Amino acid sequence: MPDNFADRLLKAIKAKNAPVCVGIDPVYGKLPAEITEHRAMNDETDSEAALDAVLEFCRRAIRIVAPLVPAVKINAAFFERYYWEGIEAYYELIQEASDVGLLVIGDCKRGDIGSTAEMYARSALSDPDFGNLDDMVGPDAITVSSYFGLDGLQPFLDVARDEAKGVFALVRTSNPSADIIQNAKLEGGLTVAEHVAQQVAAWGSDPSLMGSSGYSLLGAVVAPTDADQTVRLRGMLPNAILLVPGFGAQGGTAADIAPCFKSDGTGALISASRSILYAFDEMRYIERFPSEWDKCIEQACKDFIRDVNSVRPN
Amino acid sequence: MPDNFADRLLKAIKAKNAPVCVGIDPVYGKLPAEITEHRAMNDETDSEAALDAVLEFCRRAIRIVAPLVPAVKINAAFFERYYWEGIEAYYELIQEASDVGLLVIGDCKRGDIGSTAEMYARSALSDPDFGNLDDMVGPDAITVSSYFGLDGLQPFLDVARDEAKGVFALVRTSNPSADIIQNAKLEGGLTVAEHVAQQVAAWGSDPSLMGSSGYSLLGAVVAPTDADQTVRLRGMLPNAILLVPGFGAQGGTAADIAPCFKSDGTGALISASRSILYAFDEMRYIERFPSEWDKCIEQACKDFIRDVNSVRPN
Repeated sequence: MPDNFADRLLKAIKAKNAPVCVGIDPVYGKLPAEITEHRAMNDETDSEAALDAVLEFCRRAIRIVAPLVPAVKINAAFFERYYWEGIEAYYELIQEASDVGLLVIGDCKRGDIGSTAEMYARSALSDPDFGNLDDMVGPDAITVSSYFGLDGLQPFLDVARDEAKGVFALVRTSNPSADIIQNAKLEGGLTVAEHVAQQVAAWGSDPSLMGSSGYSLLGAVVAPTDADQTVRLRGMLPNAILLVPGFGAQGGTAADIAPCFKSDGTGALISASRSILYAFDEMRYIERFPSEWDKCIEQACKDFIRDVNSVRPN
Repeated sequence: MPDNFADRLLKAIKAKNAPVCVGIDPVYGKLPAEITEHRAMNDETDSEAALDAVLEFCRRAIRIVAPLVPAVKINAAFFERYYWEGIEAYYELIQEASDVGLLVIGDCKRGDIGSTAEMYARSALSDPDFGNLDDMVGPDAITVSSYFGLDGLQPFLDVARDEAKGVFALVRTSNPSADIIQNAKLEGGLTVAEHVAQQVAAWGSDPSLMGSSGYSLLGAVVAPTDADQTVRLRGMLPNAILLVPGFGAQGGTAADIAPCFKSDGTGALISASRSILYAFDEMRYIERFPSEWDKCIEQACKDFIRDVNSVRPN
């Protein structure tokens, strides 16, 4: 049995000295011409040709970043776009990322109640329990909704505990109109997001979910939209690793993410997607590596790690 | 261009005199022996054999209820359980249900922000825009998360408006531990669920989303867990058709669902899943139709409609 997910993630972050993950959100129209010009992949209106291009790009991107980062976050929506063949590709990528030593977070935002939550926990997080899919693996962790409360989360936590996997519950998202729900003020002064954070902290502190590092396998998705709130959420979630979106293309800066870490420099995994994957569209990388999209991705990933480490307490 | 989804749904409810939908939540272990005893389907540990059985059962169940109800609600989780082949089966069922004249609600609880929400809107709600999938249809409506606020919902609303489809935003769920989040009290006295309901009502009242019936294509998922709250939520959502889970196996009764309707008997679509699909396990149906599982489903569906209509205002 492998270690608790939080322990595994912390160890992997330490080994790479990189508290980050690269988000895999592939969009056909943004892929390097070298890939989409290939005859078999040069048709965006054919789901199979488009998916072949997407998959080829993701495979190469994952191999480029694998030596640098502890984890990738694969965004299920961008594969569901290609229907069932996209789902097959999603699982292929999970396997390939795992094979090159990466932890894999499936960013699928699943959630429901009762027997439906159990089904999602089995399909989206667990390793398959079917004999004919014996060599397949599920992701190491997934993102889930918090809106249903603990019993909606429990099936995911049960799978995570039994299979040494992790769960990141949605607390605060980075989009402009999140405020209307997530920053609504409760009696007593907490915002909805803060109240959710307190619940997630309580749910995650169950001893069966805690790793030896002092972190729980139940983490939280926290976008650093407001510095004061980020400090409060960090304080309310002492046992949670924060999965932090919003860096790079979504507008987040290194200064914004600093308060996501604890004073010892642990406790956060910063995610960047488009700013890494499509670095070959940015002038500062094109100038340095003309026509070498892979080198652009590699350099952007190194810059991302450097930027995050520059504000990380230690 | 077909009519606005709300108009289509109201018309279909009226034609069948049945403000209900049957939830399709298939579990291999509960299927009729007639199906699972079939040699090619008699292996729960093989995902393909198990899925074949599930698909065969769902096809037959859908044909049984098609003359009685206006809509089915197909629960994506129970198909994702079988990975990519399950997704293919999910879309096959959507097509088949559509072919027999049913409206199809994809119960997938999707939600995210920005470009990810756009991807989910395309994959989970839209008819495919790929040339090679030209003869395939998406569901008529889906369930989505409300936690992200309006910009997370907008891509779904855009697809729904453009393709005459519908969206049901999560407001109140039926599980015991939903209270801790959804019934938390805001300053001013509303619960979180009531605040979400007010937002959904505002978002849905955009004229481009409104049908000629006075209902919006943006409906709301409202479980009738508490009679007083149900009355308040109904009042706060004057333009929303409520998709009402919790009837039957989840413990809801006809009396509970009565306040989900407006005084003219419109405005709610009551869903029952297990109490219909597995009626052949209930003594009152077995005694009447021994060894005829299809007749049990048909009778349970008729009883469900009768029970709902008995409390529906008119």
